[in-house]
Amino acid sequence: DDLARNSTFEEVCYLLWNGELPNAEQLAGLTAQLEAERGVSDELMGMLRGYPKDADPMAALRTAVSALGMFDGAADDNSDAENRRKAILLTAKMPTIVAAFDRIRQGREPVAPKAGLSTAANFLYMLNGEEADEVRVRTMDVALVLHAEHGMNASTFAARVTAGTLSDIYSAITSAIGTLKGPSHGGANVEVMNMLREIDESGTDPKEWVLQALESGRRIMGFGHRVYKATDPRATVLRELADQIMQGSQQTRWLDLSDRIRGVMAEEMEKKGKKIYPNVDFFSASVYTTLGIGMDLFTAVFAIARVPGWTAHLLEQYANNRLIRPEVDYVGPRGLKVKPLAQR
Amino acid sequence: DDLARNSTFEEVCYLLWNGELPNAEQLAGLTAQLEAERGVSDELMGMLRGYPKDADPMAALRTAVSALGMFDGAADDNSDAENRRKAILLTAKMPTIVAAFDRIRQGREPVAPKAGLSTAANFLYMLNGEEADEVRVRTMDVALVLHAEHGMNASTFAARVTAGTLSDIYSAITSAIGTLKGPSHGGANVEVMNMLREIDESGTDPKEWVLQALESGRRIMGFGHRVYKATDPRATVLRELADQIMQGSQQTRWLDLSDRIRGVMAEEMEKKGKKIYPNVDFFSASVYTTLGIGMDLFTAVFAIARVPGWTAHLLEQYANNRLIRPEVDYVGPRGLKVKPLAQR
Repeated sequence: DDLARNSTFEEVCYLLWNGELPNAEQLAGLTAQLEAERGVSDELMGMLRGYPKDADPMAALRTAVSALGMFDGAADDNSDAENRRKAILLTAKMPTIVAAFDRIRQGREPVAPKAGLSTAANFLYMLNGEEADEVRVRTMDVALVLHAEHGMNASTFAARVTAGTLSDIYSAITSAIGTLKGPSHGGANVEVMNMLREIDESGTDPKEWVLQALESGRRIMGFGHRVYKATDPRATVLRELADQIMQGSQQTRWLDLSDRIRGVMAEEMEKKGKKIYPNVDFFSASVYTTLGIGMDLFTAVFAIARVPGWTAHLLEQYANNRLIRPEVDYVGPRGLKVKPLAQR
Repeated sequence: DDLARNSTFEEVCYLLWNGELPNAEQLAGLTAQLEAERGVSDELMGMLRGYPKDADPMAALRTAVSALGMFDGAADDNSDAENRRKAILLTAKMPTIVAAFDRIRQGREPVAPKAGLSTAANFLYMLNGEEADEVRVRTMDVALVLHAEHGMNASTFAARVTAGTLSDIYSAITSAIGTLKGPSHGGANVEVMNMLREIDESGTDPKEWVLQALESGRRIMGFGHRVYKATDPRATVLRELADQIMQGSQQTRWLDLSDRIRGVMAEEMEKKGKKIYPNVDFFSASVYTTLGIGMDLFTAVFAIARVPGWTAHLLEQYANNRLIRPEVDYVGPRGLKVKPLAQR
């Protein structure tokens, strides 16, 4: 909550990689390093142009990050200094890859990164081809901060399992992206957006829709969280920003709809004495849509935001490595013999 | 041991995917499906041609398998039937990818798969451009059988963690390849080969070299195993095949050297009353080299062999899925507040 309100994504990157927030000089240094690494090579851009236009953006990102590893001559150097360089490289280049593939698949030219913009501002610029206003940039930045790190989730764990064999950081982040791609992990806000669209297209009053859904035992997407049993603090911050965008924007359709659903759910849960609150995915769906981010890019935006968290875990893993594999019990049949083919 | 002596890689694939060995008709069916899936598209071959020539073959394989997922319109269909189709597809195409990249990076044209050959025979054919003799094909086949599955190792676990979010099988196998790439997992036979080369180039008598190494406390590569405290049964089978190749071949340099080291180690360990036996990696190093497989392809050959095991685990995971993530304790500082930038 404090970081979302009082810091930027770049400051949070520094915090995750160094254990403390940067001073002005340190922040300027990191900002310059990120800016210098944002471009992608002609070879990689050529590869992105060759990807199938209907590929899942997460499959494209997974493939492109894996390819980045082939172009880094020091990919297999797992020294702390090299891996810190690669953490910056990945954090800088992944937004460029996501924005470029999104434009290429729509038959538009990729937009090169622009000097002087923050990660958030630059991503919206590369995606939409024009600079976003201050409220939108701040909202994007907060969304990145809110998703930058979240403990030992499945994608972070997959990255650590990969690094545990002393494989390289590109392999580990490729594993993380492939793991985040699963609908049970990175896909929750996509389900929220699907629900919002369904309500919108049904023509039903949102309150009626929610009441009917609750009656029929259907799950309302974007409420409740495995970890947060009370309010998801990330949801609170994002909702305040959503309010700000709504005040300054004509495109408030999805935010309005979200707000109505939240209101109905609050009433209904209070009546039932249940404590189920909206989570970060509930608000990020309508916020991202309002920022011009297509629904099938949501998980890729999550990946862009999470890469400092993933790489911070990996720096820790490499600094004190253990191979990670559980012991399992074999419970199948024993003592079987190969029967000759003719007798089977 | 029984499977290595009395079955083929294709039969073991069927066993891993179905829980029992195939009858003649079932085996013919699987063989035909594998053969039909061996080719790769022009688009994928074009991508392989664009990879940096000095890329690690495992990084190339990781990237190409990730790309395969972009070309499969049903990549995200996790039904059992679709994932069985993809398991066959991956087992069929991965050898083609490894062989094609190896030839492309040497400036040679890839060799298309040849109808009527087994997985082992076809791989050696695509790699070397000519069909291998029967002993070599049988040796390759046994090496594939020996590496096809090995319980809950790190790469298999990484694949399951990725699938645990209901991500797709291409993501899971990409994670597995990236994890196997680590020197603590897939790289052991590379270290054996490095040692053999070092001994060869030193000009020292192998017995002297081993005695000196033991004296100085240096680890002799390819001996001992985390799981097998007595003989590694895979090593016994591979050694017998190595003997057969040696009898029929002029290129016995590395096999001879391995055999001498094995002999010295057996004597020395007996003297010390220690039980340390050669493992599968000790023999696979010289066997692969004799089969014309370059040292930096060893881990990719491991991956080709392991894909039926990985996919068998994944079929099990998807059939009864749980999200896999451990609980961890946060042990860092608490209650910190964001200090304004100017005060840091």
